[in-house]
Amino acid sequence: MAESETPNRSPEIRKDRVNNRWVLFSPARSRRPSDFKAKSNPQPNNQTECPFCAGHEHECAPEIFRIPADSTNDWKIRVIQNLYPAVSRELDFQNSVSVIGDVAVSGFGFHDVVIESPIHSVNLSDLPPVEVGEVLLAAKKRIEQLRNCESIKYVQVFKNHGASAGASMSHSHSQMIALPIVPPTVSARLDSKKEYYKQTGKCYLCDIQPNELLIDESAHFISLVPFAATFAFEIWIIPRDHSSHFHEIDSEKAIDLGGLLKLMLLKISLQLNNPPFNLLIHTSPFQDDPSAAPSTHWFLQIAPHLSGVGGFEIATGCYINPVFPEDAARILRDVKISN
Amino acid sequence: MAESETPNRSPEIRKDRVNNRWVLFSPARSRRPSDFKAKSNPQPNNQTECPFCAGHEHECAPEIFRIPADSTNDWKIRVIQNLYPAVSRELDFQNSVSVIGDVAVSGFGFHDVVIESPIHSVNLSDLPPVEVGEVLLAAKKRIEQLRNCESIKYVQVFKNHGASAGASMSHSHSQMIALPIVPPTVSARLDSKKEYYKQTGKCYLCDIQPNELLIDESAHFISLVPFAATFAFEIWIIPRDHSSHFHEIDSEKAIDLGGLLKLMLLKISLQLNNPPFNLLIHTSPFQDDPSAAPSTHWFLQIAPHLSGVGGFEIATGCYINPVFPEDAARILRDVKISN
Repeated sequence: MAESETPNRSPEIRKDRVNNRWVLFSPARSRRPSDFKAKSNPQPNNQTECPFCAGHEHECAPEIFRIPADSTNDWKIRVIQNLYPAVSRELDFQNSVSVIGDVAVSGFGFHDVVIESPIHSVNLSDLPPVEVGEVLLAAKKRIEQLRNCESIKYVQVFKNHGASAGASMSHSHSQMIALPIVPPTVSARLDSKKEYYKQTGKCYLCDIQPNELLIDESAHFISLVPFAATFAFEIWIIPRDHSSHFHEIDSEKAIDLGGLLKLMLLKISLQLNNPPFNLLIHTSPFQDDPSAAPSTHWFLQIAPHLSGVGGFEIATGCYINPVFPEDAARILRDVKISN
Repeated sequence: MAESETPNRSPEIRKDRVNNRWVLFSPARSRRPSDFKAKSNPQPNNQTECPFCAGHEHECAPEIFRIPADSTNDWKIRVIQNLYPAVSRELDFQNSVSVIGDVAVSGFGFHDVVIESPIHSVNLSDLPPVEVGEVLLAAKKRIEQLRNCESIKYVQVFKNHGASAGASMSHSHSQMIALPIVPPTVSARLDSKKEYYKQTGKCYLCDIQPNELLIDESAHFISLVPFAATFAFEIWIIPRDHSSHFHEIDSEKAIDLGGLLKLMLLKISLQLNNPPFNLLIHTSPFQDDPSAAPSTHWFLQIAPHLSGVGGFEIATGCYINPVFPEDAARILRDVKISN
């Protein structure tokens, strides 16, 4: 359907069955779906003296490993500690319950940074597919190290691009926070997927029929706009084969994923004018309840930030999305990337 | 304890037992608690031709009622339809389930606006306590009207102050969205409070012992920083008497609440340099499960926005709060407002 033929859609409230929440689709608030662009995407500090650049390694918190392992100034990827960690690797993990029924644990955990390139001006989507795959494999390697710490229950890998998506450094990097608790969104997702499995005997993400929501596919992955996307032009990349944990990915699949991820990042950058975005790897807790294995299926989410979050979203957990997923998928399918 | 004596706190992960989620308290990322200020709080359009101002009523969507009811240009409060509603009062409510197991309902609902003053430059906190109470009573009146629509399950009242908190108009107003579903955050809160009641035989908010978290109190309300505050300097105002629904408030209590709310808004404005914030009324669904009544207790939340939300929060539902609630409460207690 040509853009000019986009039908006048009525508002709709859709259930996100992966996250067990509702999303309000409200096209009346907005322009034509194809007119959506990031207003501006101010980058954080763009120092000439960036500690993430090659040659400035001594300005960073300690390195955990680099790739290649034996490289010196010619490293491609560095995994380092975060200088301002949200959790502390130096604390003991302790459960403590206070007298009035409130619950707290020590802020034990690991907060690491993956520097994705030695060169300041290179974005993740500028790298060739193989090197995007190597960034994913660096995250896999670090997750496997963190698995050895028995207090750690979950590792969240995330990338903030642009100041309004939470980035405080403009040099391309992602972050990993390893937590001694299972976060609430992860628990809700596990419960919701288990419920779908109980009802249907199938994994929701294995069972998905993208049809008009499909954007593209590769040998091992599909990319689509989810039926109840939280954000306008949100993209999920889902492994075709059932797999609970991201760290089960092998090199061949990582490179295949690297190519599809690069393509999706280029498409949103071109269509939406280099928007701020988050890139999130949704995996499963380490000590997974074995009964959850058939229903949990890791995936990757790209969440562009085209509008802010207000009191309604904070209060209700319901997001308002002005672009119907069918329209977003059609527009993203049609974006041509020349290689 | 004097500010200079604030101890060096270690990171801590606290359970928010009302919302059943975890919050990371991470003081190492930040300055001293008393140094937190909003960087800037750009206001949205500050038109000289504002449709919410007295004399411009014809530029607005239809009025629902005004206060006083028989006023003309001398109205004090107007409740009107939102010109760009997120849900539509013109749709029929329909449940529909698609073939692939996805769930959607029509985007039926009501999206209204409460104009809190006829004068453009007057903020909610500028009004005398009685008039803040009248704004609260206008919301109560509208909720009672919406209760008569049997498809409506929940009404969210919210106020966005400042562009980065989601405001698109600078004239002081709040909004109400009435939904045919119970939002996920509300369901999670109901479940969590029911669980606490099951364990203890008490309502969590009746049972709360604020101690060092208390900021102030009035005849019928207490204001405090919650034990696991999601946002730095977040405030809850809680009715002393158990009550499930905000709309059960009477005039005397509304005026009492108006005074305490005004005081809290003035305190955060002075301490945090007029920050962007959301003001949220957390009430219970209309068709409340009778077994939930002893555990559900409405309250009001003030959520200042001092930092943005990044990928970690979106992915996990865990927020990172750089200010310990005990420090925030002490600082807010000490802010002197001259009346």
